[in-house]
Amino acid sequence: MNKSINLKQRPVGTPTLSDFDFKEKENELGVAEGEVLLEAKYISVDPYLRGRMSDAKSYVPPFKVGEPISSGIVAEVLESKNENFQKGDFVSGLLEWKEQQVSSGEGLQKVDKSKAPLSAFLGIVGMTGLTAYLGLHEIGKPKKGETLVVSGAAGAVGSVVGQIGKILGLNVIGIAGTDEKIDMLKSEFGFDHGINYKTTEDMKSAIEAAAPNGVDIYFDNVGGPISDAVLFNINQFARIIICGAISVYNKTELPMAVAVQPFLVKNSALMQGFIVRNYADKFPQAIKQLSTWLGEEKLTYKETIVEGFENTPQAFLDMMDGKNKGKMIVKV
Amino acid sequence: MNKSINLKQRPVGTPTLSDFDFKEKENELGVAEGEVLLEAKYISVDPYLRGRMSDAKSYVPPFKVGEPISSGIVAEVLESKNENFQKGDFVSGLLEWKEQQVSSGEGLQKVDKSKAPLSAFLGIVGMTGLTAYLGLHEIGKPKKGETLVVSGAAGAVGSVVGQIGKILGLNVIGIAGTDEKIDMLKSEFGFDHGINYKTTEDMKSAIEAAAPNGVDIYFDNVGGPISDAVLFNINQFARIIICGAISVYNKTELPMAVAVQPFLVKNSALMQGFIVRNYADKFPQAIKQLSTWLGEEKLTYKETIVEGFENTPQAFLDMMDGKNKGKMIVKV
Repeated sequence: MNKSINLKQRPVGTPTLSDFDFKEKENELGVAEGEVLLEAKYISVDPYLRGRMSDAKSYVPPFKVGEPISSGIVAEVLESKNENFQKGDFVSGLLEWKEQQVSSGEGLQKVDKSKAPLSAFLGIVGMTGLTAYLGLHEIGKPKKGETLVVSGAAGAVGSVVGQIGKILGLNVIGIAGTDEKIDMLKSEFGFDHGINYKTTEDMKSAIEAAAPNGVDIYFDNVGGPISDAVLFNINQFARIIICGAISVYNKTELPMAVAVQPFLVKNSALMQGFIVRNYADKFPQAIKQLSTWLGEEKLTYKETIVEGFENTPQAFLDMMDGKNKGKMIVKV
Repeated sequence: MNKSINLKQRPVGTPTLSDFDFKEKENELGVAEGEVLLEAKYISVDPYLRGRMSDAKSYVPPFKVGEPISSGIVAEVLESKNENFQKGDFVSGLLEWKEQQVSSGEGLQKVDKSKAPLSAFLGIVGMTGLTAYLGLHEIGKPKKGETLVVSGAAGAVGSVVGQIGKILGLNVIGIAGTDEKIDMLKSEFGFDHGINYKTTEDMKSAIEAAAPNGVDIYFDNVGGPISDAVLFNINQFARIIICGAISVYNKTELPMAVAVQPFLVKNSALMQGFIVRNYADKFPQAIKQLSTWLGEEKLTYKETIVEGFENTPQAFLDMMDGKNKGKMIVKV
């Protein structure tokens, strides 16, 4: 029997388990010429999936109700009729939440498990690392000595952004939601400062204290009031990378915020939405750099691994709720 | 006697005449070696001056209370001890609101009144034209066939932006606040569509109707709810030029708006504050292009000219209130 996890209905507000359902089909997957049969090994659950569960006009087509969710997955090739892959290969790609599936091979990358653990190809040397590296470089254009603020800093992308910031010689401030996470930012990831937004009353002043020379780059994973507080501290020619807006994904009312326009105009500042797939031509160079830093132990990463395919929806909900540290991954 | 207009106190909310005062001094301006004595002929009043009247951290130093306001001015050289200028020359520059003043000559540009009327050097072939041209090109990066929305479209900058948009082959939509202005956008400036935001109930739908293919470039002079409505209609890779935020300059409470972050991230869109002086290296090329278009009658412009130095504060207030069409200028 082959299980899949489908979008049962579009979540309204915070998603719950009842928005997902499981289907089981007898396993009679035929592999045609050019195709491969894959077995999922590791599944990535990420904030952006919440966006695709809604029906909004969006840069990616929304998931279809009644059909499987898809996300970054590392899988093993069980059978191949495609000359680019062999039985026993491991691949990563945007795949469906199914135990087994057939693929044309398009968009699949072979991964070399001698270079890094399989799960890392979803994280530090996969989409997470690429998002951190390319967002920071392509929009943030960091210069040594500048000040970088990262929100969602203890998350998968945020923790890598901060570490790259330190490698590049920036003053790095991380914002996260528990004291344990704040400790981790400093002790494990080398951030200069950490701010717990849940226990800090005046975020604007806390950021000002940590960034006495103002904020040059803001890597924004969250949106909402945290981002409003950063705005008050931006410098002339500041660059704001909008990588995510996890604080508003579940809102049913249109979220309101401090108007950004006056801040941007008076500081000649830039704010840009970042979607990693738009930078695909830069993936090879970025992966090379990330692998080098990983090998030199200049980068480290954390994973929260949940076991069991059937726990994928709960892992997604927990990640949305900030229960993960670093990358949230399901081991099938 | 030589009159000046000073900032009496920092306006709270909407400025009034009582925020300004006049000083009169006997005219004993001595001209030292290297200096010129100037007589103001035309004074530009612009929305950005409101920002400088506040004490906020800002890219330009705020005006000082008790001292003269300054803005773009065209003046005649009455006396020169500077080799770059002769008696009878006309110059433009950032000068003080004084009938006569002495200048070191720094930052002054000679203007040739055989090429355009003197007032045009404050407008279409001055800061206004430069702001429109460089904002649209440097941040907007227009491509033929794209859709451009301009807010404050009947204002000095907006009306030039729309015309340049048409020269470049864009679908151009202007937003303004009276039916008379909307008529003017279409009949005089060649805009494809005009939307009166004061009489339109559903701005989001009105923009959608005028921009069936979505909005690629938004040249924003106003901020506030008009800009919120444009956000719903932006395309992937949209570019938003924040040139001004006249709708919020007078606010005493921190203005709230629809959160822009989710729109920017899902559309990979860019929003950037534009201040013309950051692009000074591109002024000569831009002025050349603007002059060429003006000579070819591809560009036209409107001025609202108020007579009398003492009416400068009222002219500023009227401009903030949208009573001008095109560039608001005081003829001294």
